[in-house]
Amino acid sequence: MGIINPSTNNHFNGYKMKTKFKPYYVVIFTSTYSDNTVGYNEMATRMEHLASEQKGFLGMDSARNDVGITNSYWESLEDIKNWKRNSEHLFAQQKGKEQWYSWYNVRICKVESEYEFHK
Amino acid sequence: MGIINPSTNNHFNGYKMKTKFKPYYVVIFTSTYSDNTVGYNEMATRMEHLASEQKGFLGMDSARNDVGITNSYWESLEDIKNWKRNSEHLFAQQKGKEQWYSWYNVRICKVESEYEFHK
Repeated sequence: MGIINPSTNNHFNGYKMKTKFKPYYVVIFTSTYSDNTVGYNEMATRMEHLASEQKGFLGMDSARNDVGITNSYWESLEDIKNWKRNSEHLFAQQKGKEQWYSWYNVRICKVESEYEFHK
Repeated sequence: MGIINPSTNNHFNGYKMKTKFKPYYVVIFTSTYSDNTVGYNEMATRMEHLASEQKGFLGMDSARNDVGITNSYWESLEDIKNWKRNSEHLFAQQKGKEQWYSWYNVRICKVESEYEFHK
């Protein structure tokens, strides 16, 4: 599970929201590795920690098989822009392009509704 | 990589869109398994195939480690509603709740912008 799940406090019997739903944003980062992933795991761990310290950060989920998917959740588009411009993150982005990724795609999305199930 | 990548025809030097970007939708399905995943893989494969045949389906990316993430892309909210109500999919959803998942979260999101990098 992600570091923080933004909906953790909203579920009720898996389907009803306790509180009014407030739209937020998600950055969907989908990627495939290049042949050279030296240093990648350390940087990914560092970036996850650094992201979690940023204003407006709500949570993150990641998994990788053939393709890697990281969905990070944010309060606003402004928060996403600020994170993109973070100097340490800019360095990681540059390393990613030069070395780690053969391909990636970034989608900026507005979460319009949400529901949850749990046992 | 997913079955189809909806942005495949839009990239140019990794950053510029050839065509005007048209917003579309993503269903983010995040889940954790229960102890009993018998039959899950067969059903997941079947649902991926069935989804790809639905009206408005644009593509899908999936990965699973501690958490499973499936991002499926659709032309409209109506297409997403229709897929949710598909009878075979409804059966799979019921099986998922009864047997396979200990937890899941569904987010319906509008993709507002997108960019891509490739070597």
